[in-house]
Amino acid sequence: MTLDYKAAGVDIDAANQAKQLMASAVRSTHTAAVLAGMGAFGGALSLGPTLARYADPVLVASTDGVGTKTLIASQLGRYDTVGQDLVNHCINDLLVQGARPLFFMDYIAAAKLQAEHVAALVGGIAQACREANCALLGGETAEMPDVYAPAAFDLAGTMVGIVARDQLITGQAIRAGDAVAALPSSGLHTNGYSLARRICGPLGYVSQPPVLGGQTLGDALLAVHRSYLPQIESLWSAGISVNGLAHITGGGLWENVPRVLPEGVGVEVWRGTWSVPPILRFLVEQAGLDEHEAYRTFNMGLGMIVVLPADQLAKAQAAVPELRHVGQVLPANGDVRVRLV
Amino acid sequence: MTLDYKAAGVDIDAANQAKQLMASAVRSTHTAAVLAGMGAFGGALSLGPTLARYADPVLVASTDGVGTKTLIASQLGRYDTVGQDLVNHCINDLLVQGARPLFFMDYIAAAKLQAEHVAALVGGIAQACREANCALLGGETAEMPDVYAPAAFDLAGTMVGIVARDQLITGQAIRAGDAVAALPSSGLHTNGYSLARRICGPLGYVSQPPVLGGQTLGDALLAVHRSYLPQIESLWSAGISVNGLAHITGGGLWENVPRVLPEGVGVEVWRGTWSVPPILRFLVEQAGLDEHEAYRTFNMGLGMIVVLPADQLAKAQAAVPELRHVGQVLPANGDVRVRLV
Repeated sequence: MTLDYKAAGVDIDAANQAKQLMASAVRSTHTAAVLAGMGAFGGALSLGPTLARYADPVLVASTDGVGTKTLIASQLGRYDTVGQDLVNHCINDLLVQGARPLFFMDYIAAAKLQAEHVAALVGGIAQACREANCALLGGETAEMPDVYAPAAFDLAGTMVGIVARDQLITGQAIRAGDAVAALPSSGLHTNGYSLARRICGPLGYVSQPPVLGGQTLGDALLAVHRSYLPQIESLWSAGISVNGLAHITGGGLWENVPRVLPEGVGVEVWRGTWSVPPILRFLVEQAGLDEHEAYRTFNMGLGMIVVLPADQLAKAQAAVPELRHVGQVLPANGDVRVRLV
Repeated sequence: MTLDYKAAGVDIDAANQAKQLMASAVRSTHTAAVLAGMGAFGGALSLGPTLARYADPVLVASTDGVGTKTLIASQLGRYDTVGQDLVNHCINDLLVQGARPLFFMDYIAAAKLQAEHVAALVGGIAQACREANCALLGGETAEMPDVYAPAAFDLAGTMVGIVARDQLITGQAIRAGDAVAALPSSGLHTNGYSLARRICGPLGYVSQPPVLGGQTLGDALLAVHRSYLPQIESLWSAGISVNGLAHITGGGLWENVPRVLPEGVGVEVWRGTWSVPPILRFLVEQAGLDEHEAYRTFNMGLGMIVVLPADQLAKAQAAVPELRHVGQVLPANGDVRVRLV
């Protein structure tokens, strides 16, 4: 790109059709900073308007995929949501460092690309980009018949964001006594799908276990990975000192919280202080996972952990009502950095 | 990352082993601008040192894959070169807009990741990044058993570069009368592998057709995609007005040259003014391609087209001796933008 959605494979017609279908979605994400029509080998974004707002700017980048959530999407023929999953996952990975999105690049690959599926995927990507004021600057599609399984596709992307150097969130400001808060997840987000498919595939994605209150398994499993950009922006606007953020993805609470903790402290999370989404309770029960396995495989309802000074908690909850107080930071207790009590 | 090479799948041990093997390769690409150890959800690069050299900076980004060249790599068990292919492909895509590399993010996915293969892939990526003074800032690995064919893997990446707005190359400076020059390719680069595999697979990749002068088919097919950064830097240093650059990839001469031509001009390329690599002559002959098909499927030895004022050609060739004079820019001749004469 700018609009270089060419196929690496041979079906140029399908690629051209997809290009047409995608062009308006992509353009809808473009602000004046995007220099379009200026050469087709890559996307270009003027930094000028942005730099005025960032002293000593730092670029932050994250590459992610959505894993095997794509297999459920293709099995159900629903291609409009996984693009949003991908973008929102990346947004959250930048957010935890204090960065805001600048632009996104996507990669879509399959044995054989269907133009209408690609267009739906890119439509979802563009929607999530628009909501985050992020330009969809480019991407690549590839057809690789002997690399991919027949009906499968892969979806990955890279987001680049920006933060002033003195606004970088590193977790080093976290202190014993800080409050641990959480923003609720919408479901699995993008983790735990191998297990979820093993359990739900045989039941059928249209089945409606009573615990889901009328929702199908497929709908619950494809619930869109939430972006926490609006909530974190609200905290910043309210002047809250966000000392640390952990995006709860693969490895769950156990692996993601320690990534932001400084030496000498640990985190205690209190059971029952937030709601575990029904689909996660269903999967944990069906799979017979013990608590440790459950919290390693799934986010268990904790989409984003927010560490902040305890005396700012009330103000933070006034700014973001869905923020739950779920625990506290304590002096380190041996090697255990995260405990569920 | 910075070092977030976590697997989306379940084999955490293999992922951890790969992480160890890769860490030193990744670190070898890091300059002082890379803010390491500052949070593990994404890579971060300080723009401060760079901005001093770019008035009105523009970020340029390109996402690419290496297509089914990965299948030959895995069949031959050679994982050290395709990472270089990927990085160099991206470098050239930025170069054609006048941009120099800042950082790279990779994506490696397979049904099952082998730690030593991932380490070799990342080693190749890091090597090409070092040669281009480009930070390997992060990446993602994913294990997706039902998405990928058993022994196959995919490799994609995104490069972000920078250029001063008034140094952007758009092709709009190209005029009738300009010289068309070319930098030689090393072989297929990353295009035409579906056809190449159909022809060479049955012959065996260890076979040595006489035309290859002792080289095996496998070695010729895995020849590394060249980066033209040193050559283009030399032209810029010599004060050459590079009016247009076209990286010859999928679609060949026919599709890539018109992307940079302004209205009203076309390009005439003179047969026999450069050397067609032996592996490409072999494939064209074996496949029985006519000339038009050959130049659509393969680069035919023209890795990068360089358009410059005719009176600067001698000076350009003095700066870059391998630069070949292969044609000229003419007033447009109907709809045909590129002719081979």
